[in-house]
Amino acid sequence: MSNKISIGILGLGTVGSGIIHILENHKKELIAKTGVADVEIRKVLVRDLEKNRDGNLDSDMLTLNAEDVLEDPEIDLVIEVMGGIDEAKQHMEKALKNKKHIVTANKDLIALHGDELLEIAAANHCELLYEASVAGGIPILRSLTEGLASDRITKMMGIVNGTTNYMLSKMTREGLNYEEALQQAQDQGFAESDPTADVEGLDAARKMVILARLGFSASVQLDDVYLRGMSTVTAEDIAFGQQLGYTLKLIGLASRSDEGVEVSVEPVFIPEEHPLSAVHDEYNAVYVYGEAVGETMFYGPGAGALPTATAVVSDVVSVIRQVRLGTGKAQVAPTINEETVLKEPEDIYAKYYVRAHVHDVAGAFKRLTSVFTSNNVSFEKLIQQPLDSQDLAEVVMVTHETNRAIFEKIMDDMAGLDVVKAIKSRYRVEGGESDVPEQRDLAFV
Amino acid sequence: MSNKISIGILGLGTVGSGIIHILENHKKELIAKTGVADVEIRKVLVRDLEKNRDGNLDSDMLTLNAEDVLEDPEIDLVIEVMGGIDEAKQHMEKALKNKKHIVTANKDLIALHGDELLEIAAANHCELLYEASVAGGIPILRSLTEGLASDRITKMMGIVNGTTNYMLSKMTREGLNYEEALQQAQDQGFAESDPTADVEGLDAARKMVILARLGFSASVQLDDVYLRGMSTVTAEDIAFGQQLGYTLKLIGLASRSDEGVEVSVEPVFIPEEHPLSAVHDEYNAVYVYGEAVGETMFYGPGAGALPTATAVVSDVVSVIRQVRLGTGKAQVAPTINEETVLKEPEDIYAKYYVRAHVHDVAGAFKRLTSVFTSNNVSFEKLIQQPLDSQDLAEVVMVTHETNRAIFEKIMDDMAGLDVVKAIKSRYRVEGGESDVPEQRDLAFV
Repeated sequence: MSNKISIGILGLGTVGSGIIHILENHKKELIAKTGVADVEIRKVLVRDLEKNRDGNLDSDMLTLNAEDVLEDPEIDLVIEVMGGIDEAKQHMEKALKNKKHIVTANKDLIALHGDELLEIAAANHCELLYEASVAGGIPILRSLTEGLASDRITKMMGIVNGTTNYMLSKMTREGLNYEEALQQAQDQGFAESDPTADVEGLDAARKMVILARLGFSASVQLDDVYLRGMSTVTAEDIAFGQQLGYTLKLIGLASRSDEGVEVSVEPVFIPEEHPLSAVHDEYNAVYVYGEAVGETMFYGPGAGALPTATAVVSDVVSVIRQVRLGTGKAQVAPTINEETVLKEPEDIYAKYYVRAHVHDVAGAFKRLTSVFTSNNVSFEKLIQQPLDSQDLAEVVMVTHETNRAIFEKIMDDMAGLDVVKAIKSRYRVEGGESDVPEQRDLAFV
Repeated sequence: MSNKISIGILGLGTVGSGIIHILENHKKELIAKTGVADVEIRKVLVRDLEKNRDGNLDSDMLTLNAEDVLEDPEIDLVIEVMGGIDEAKQHMEKALKNKKHIVTANKDLIALHGDELLEIAAANHCELLYEASVAGGIPILRSLTEGLASDRITKMMGIVNGTTNYMLSKMTREGLNYEEALQQAQDQGFAESDPTADVEGLDAARKMVILARLGFSASVQLDDVYLRGMSTVTAEDIAFGQQLGYTLKLIGLASRSDEGVEVSVEPVFIPEEHPLSAVHDEYNAVYVYGEAVGETMFYGPGAGALPTATAVVSDVVSVIRQVRLGTGKAQVAPTINEETVLKEPEDIYAKYYVRAHVHDVAGAFKRLTSVFTSNNVSFEKLIQQPLDSQDLAEVVMVTHETNRAIFEKIMDDMAGLDVVKAIKSRYRVEGGESDVPEQRDLAFV
C-alpha cells in the first residue's frame, strides 16, 4: 500500500453515495487520522452508466465492469456495498487475491461465508472489516474488539432487526395484531413486500452468527441457530405480558459457558425495567455481558443509508491505520475455535411464559400445576381468569428458571392432560436479575 | 519507543491492581494487537511498601518515589490511577516532558486541566488518553472519536453520575425522599460521607466538560456549565412526573448549534419511553445525536475497579498502536476551537415542568395561565387538584417548547401573582420527539 490510498467501490446505491460524500468531505480528517498523503476514490462499479446521479462523481470513474475495480493495480481497498451473495463473494475473493483490502456492509455474505472470506483475507495479508453488517449505525463490532478487548464476553442479547422491532412496538403500544403491524411496517418502508427473512428471524440470525463468532471466537454457523419467528405472536400475549411486567421483543441471544455455546433468535419476554424494553420502533440495540465490565448496551439505528455509510467509513479508517501498523493481522478476524460445542437443551436455562386454555372443572388447576411441580419447576407469576361465555379458564404462567429439555417435557405432559384444551402460546423470559451471569471479581484473570 | 513497551503505574488501589492483572494475563493478545515484542510493567508508585497485596507483583517493582517512574528512561508509558489533582498533574507534566505517553482515569484532573495537559502532550509528541475518566466501563470517548468519527455530533445527554442515578431510581421506584435515598446510597457504598460533588452535579459537570470538548471540539470550562443539583428534588415531583409520563434523571446535556454551545447539568424530566428513562440504579449512559447516524446510546457501569481497568487497558492498546503508526497526533486530543461561544438563554429551548400552589379562588387558574399565554407559551399537559384541608389547589404544568429567557420571565411574573402562594418546583423536560435535531439527509456533507 503506497502512501496514497486508492479506493474502489462496488455498488452505488444510497449507501454507496453516502460513502462517497463522506469520503470526499472528510478527506482532511481522514488524512490526519491515518497519516497517509491522500485518499482518492478511483473506480465505482455501477449497474447503469446513464442513471442520473447527484453529487460530483466524474463519469469516467464509473464502470459496468467489475474487473476495472478488481484488477486495477492502483486500487488498495475495495468497499463492497452491492449486496447479494454469489456475485459479491466472487468479487471479494478476486479482490483479496489481488491483495486488496475490503470493507463490506454485506451481512448475508459475512454470515454465510465470513469464515472462508476471512481465511482468504488472512492468507493474502489483507484486512476484511464489516462493522456495517450488524446494527448499521452502532459501533458494536468495534466495541467488542477494542473497547471490551481485555474482557471476556459471556452473553449478548440483541434487538438486531429493525422491521420486527417496529412491528412489535406497534403491537405493544397500539394493540395492533400481526397483520396490521406488518401492513404499517410495509407502508412506512420498514418491511419488504416479502417480509419472510425479517419476521421469521433469519436476518437477525445472520447478525447473531456474526456477533457470536466475534464475541466468543466460536465456530457458529447459521444452522446452529435455534430459530423462531414472530409471525405467530398475538396482541393478546403481548398484553398479558405487560400485565405481568414484561415487554415482548425478538431477541437474538448468544451465550457461552463451560458447556458450550448457544445462539438463538426468538420472541422473548424482557422485564419492562430492562434497558432492552426501552428500545422502540425501528431501533436496534445489543446488550453485552462481560466478566470484567459487567453489563453494557449499545443502541442506535440498525439501518439507513447514512448510518451504514458512517460505519463503512470508520472501517476504512481502521483498515488504513491497521495496514500502516503492519501487524499483519486483521482487526476483526477472530481466531475461530473450531472445537466449538453447542449447548445441549439440558444446559440452556431460562424462565418461560405459558398461556393455556383449561376446562373450568374442579381440580383442573391442580392437575395443571402438578405437571410443573412433578418436574421440580415452580411458578414465579400466575394469572387465572374465566374466558367469556365458555366453560374455559385462561391460565398464564411464568416459571422459575429451568432448562429447555425439562420445559419441553412439561409442554408434552401438559398437552396430554384432558383438562387442557389448548396450549395457546409459550415464550422464553430473559433479562431478569438471576439471568445475569455472576460477575466474578477478577476471576477472568 | 522501542519494540518492547515498558509501563510505569502511579497508584495501586483497586483500579491499579485490576490493570496489572489484565496486563499480565492478556499479554499475548496485547502483543498480537499492537505488534510489539513485549509489554512489561516496570515500576509501580505506591503509598505504603508494606501493605499486603495479593497478586504476584515483585516487591522491587514497588516504589515510594515518583521519580523512579517519571525519570526512568526505560519507561515508555505511564498509567495514572492515583487520583487527586495537584500532585497527579505535576507527575503527568513531568512524565510528558520526559516523553512518556500517559493513560489516565482521572476525570477531575482532565476536566480542570485537560486542555493544558493535552497541549503539553502534543508539544512533546506524546499521547494522553483518558477513556476511563468518563463513564468507566462505557467506551464512549472511543465511540465519539472512532465509531462516529465521520459524523457531526450535535447533542449529547448523559446520565454520568452513578450515585445520583441510584438515588433517583430509589426515589422513583420506592417513593423514598432525598434523605432516605442518600442514606441507602451511603449504606450501599455508592455515596461518600460527603456527597456534595455527586448530588450537586459537580462530578457530572466535569464529565460533560470532557464530552463537550471532545464531541464538539469546543473550548468549554467547568464555569461554563449551568449547574443545578438534585438535593432539592422531592418524591412528590417524581410522582407527579410519572403521572404525566416522565422519569426524573440528573442529566448532563451538551448541545451545539449555529448560536453556540450549551452545557448543563440539572434534574430533567425524560419521557418514560425514552431509552434514558430505562437507565436504572448506578448505571450510566450517554445518548448521542449525530447528523448522519441519528440517535445512539452507550450504556454501562459508570464506575468500579474492573470496568475502569478494562477502559484503561483499551487505552494502553490504543496508545501503543497510535505511537507505532507514527502519525504524531494524539487520538483523543481534539483541536479545540478557542472561539467557542456559549449559547445565550434566548437560544436554549426546552419544555418545562412547573408545580405551584395556587389559592383556590374564582379566576385564579385563568390568571395563572394568562402569564404563560401572554408570553406566547402554551401547555402540553396540565394537572389541577385540591390540596388536602387547605384552601389551595395544586397545579402542575408542562409547557411546550420555549427558551430559557422567556421561561425565567414567566417564573418572575408568576411569583408576582397574588393568587400564587408558592412555586414549589420547576424542571426542564427533554427527550421528546421535537427535541431531536432534525436529521438532515446528507446535509452534513
